[in-house]
Amino acid sequence: MSTPAYDDQNVFARILRAELPSHKLYEDEKTVAIMDIMPRGDGHVLVIPKAPSRNILDIATEDLNAVMATVQKMGATVIKAFDADGLTVQQFSEPAGGQVVFHTHVHVIPRFEGVPLKPHTGEMADNELLASQADKIRAALS
Amino acid sequence: MSTPAYDDQNVFARILRAELPSHKLYEDEKTVAIMDIMPRGDGHVLVIPKAPSRNILDIATEDLNAVMATVQKMGATVIKAFDADGLTVQQFSEPAGGQVVFHTHVHVIPRFEGVPLKPHTGEMADNELLASQADKIRAALS
Repeated sequence: MSTPAYDDQNVFARILRAELPSHKLYEDEKTVAIMDIMPRGDGHVLVIPKAPSRNILDIATEDLNAVMATVQKMGATVIKAFDADGLTVQQFSEPAGGQVVFHTHVHVIPRFEGVPLKPHTGEMADNELLASQADKIRAALS
Repeated sequence: MSTPAYDDQNVFARILRAELPSHKLYEDEKTVAIMDIMPRGDGHVLVIPKAPSRNILDIATEDLNAVMATVQKMGATVIKAFDADGLTVQQFSEPAGGQVVFHTHVHVIPRFEGVPLKPHTGEMADNELLASQADKIRAALS
């Protein structure tokens, strides 16, 4: 398998350039965290490096390290915000691996006893619900 | 949620102390990679830090960085070894998050077009099959 080239018209690149809106939760020098608009559970967050890379197969070490530091921070934060019982972290590379948007991103999903992940239906969540969950997460961050 | 203390009698701690066997694929100063004996697909590898930590909620940054470097290395290697089309990377924290063994580990699973992940049944794979897959991965590493 050869990894295709990075395409800077992907949705996350456009969000990073503020060409598309997002519920931004956190930002530092190398990463941002936003709400997943097709969440597999309450409080489903995405961590995205600012630098272009397609997925884990081509991301630079320093960007991956920065992403994982933000994953740890956001993981602890969503558990606190939603009083969750656990955390599921996922990263998908290439369509066969489950990737849909071709800018590296890591899923951070708070988990609750007895609540399975919702299937990825491609259906968008209610925007007001996402906004209120984003507020909860921002409050837990500060 | 408060994270329970690390218990050094977990299966991966025992594998790290060589009290239990494993199909070891790779080792460096801070990490090892082994075959998952309950694989969700061919070539399912686990990357484990040598230092004790329960999961992503308590692992030290330097250990997490070392784990992710090995995840990248093993990800590229299993894709090469099995001529895979993609990669799925997962990390589960606490039982509600999907964690079964309470020493940090990251799942690295080569993926193939049209082949879903097998469910986690708790059933062990055939040891000879795992040994032959391990040989393939070691050959692709070198």
